[in-house]
Amino acid sequence: MPQTLEFYFDFASPYSYLASTQLEALARRTGAVLQWRPFLLGPLFKALGTQPPFMQPARLTWMQKDLEAWAEVYGLPPLVFPESFPINSVLANRLGLVASREEGRIGPFAQAVFRAAFAKARDVSSREVLGEALEAAGLDVERALAQAGSDAIKAELRKNTEDAQRRGAFGAPTFFVGERMFFGNDRLTFVEKALSRAG
Amino acid sequence: MPQTLEFYFDFASPYSYLASTQLEALARRTGAVLQWRPFLLGPLFKALGTQPPFMQPARLTWMQKDLEAWAEVYGLPPLVFPESFPINSVLANRLGLVASREEGRIGPFAQAVFRAAFAKARDVSSREVLGEALEAAGLDVERALAQAGSDAIKAELRKNTEDAQRRGAFGAPTFFVGERMFFGNDRLTFVEKALSRAG
Repeated sequence: MPQTLEFYFDFASPYSYLASTQLEALARRTGAVLQWRPFLLGPLFKALGTQPPFMQPARLTWMQKDLEAWAEVYGLPPLVFPESFPINSVLANRLGLVASREEGRIGPFAQAVFRAAFAKARDVSSREVLGEALEAAGLDVERALAQAGSDAIKAELRKNTEDAQRRGAFGAPTFFVGERMFFGNDRLTFVEKALSRAG
Repeated sequence: MPQTLEFYFDFASPYSYLASTQLEALARRTGAVLQWRPFLLGPLFKALGTQPPFMQPARLTWMQKDLEAWAEVYGLPPLVFPESFPINSVLANRLGLVASREEGRIGPFAQAVFRAAFAKARDVSSREVLGEALEAAGLDVERALAQAGSDAIKAELRKNTEDAQRRGAFGAPTFFVGERMFFGNDRLTFVEKALSRAG
């Protein structure tokens, strides 16, 4: 049975964006099944009584340089931030769950949203920008937006957030190989090693 | 003129220990001059209004696994913690400054202290344990301990801590290549790239 690589992410998280650009290739190399798990960082930080890292000015200054360096390592366009930062990612994350329900849609959708935010500085709380990402992923825009407002999807996003906390997450991106947890884009080499050992 | 690699560390920091095991080889590979800069994390966190990462239970649980994984990558003994954690590192850091004043002493001294703490779970606030590290580095124990209590050394440790903050540090280990700052043992590949480009 193939191993599963669970990717807990929030569309508001620039390090999740970085990781998202690497995961499909990593999954192919290791034969793992990639599972995208959108969740909300805000409620997680609140539940843990912690603050988002960008609230520390010195850390934020360093993070901007660090994100640039990673974008260069990965061959990505210079990393930019939407004007309204932090990003309101609730609708984007709900749509991520909608996209996950149809085979092969979540990868293209997620990458279109992340690129809109962090390569094009677009407002990914807007229905227009999200509509373009849904179209790029071959999804019906009106239907997806309607589904995103359903109680089932809202409950699923809450559940992902609660699951993340219960399993030990304290930020994003967070990866699970079984119940072994890895935190951060900078731990992808450890993730790959764990999958290679397990496989 | 050779590039300088400044290593801001605190003997209380397990990620500083990990980095310390790699830096001399990295300096040799890049031709950089390694400068050891002991400082105190406690006053830095206090000045920034932040908390040490191990105060977050979920992060601490993950850090223990993560430190284990890095120890394995580096071929180090399993990482352990002294019984009295967090470590009172004031005297060790002051002795680090004393050791820095004599050519070729700080590397062996620092590695002996870090190993005592994180490979042997010994109490590195004790004069006995620090005395052994001083001896291992070829330093006169009584003289070094006397110097460590001097106003000049106390002032130098405060200055290193203030310099770290002024230059943008928010944790340890922190590295500088010129004024380009890198945070974390997990950024040593970026440090090496910066030194290779500059050199």
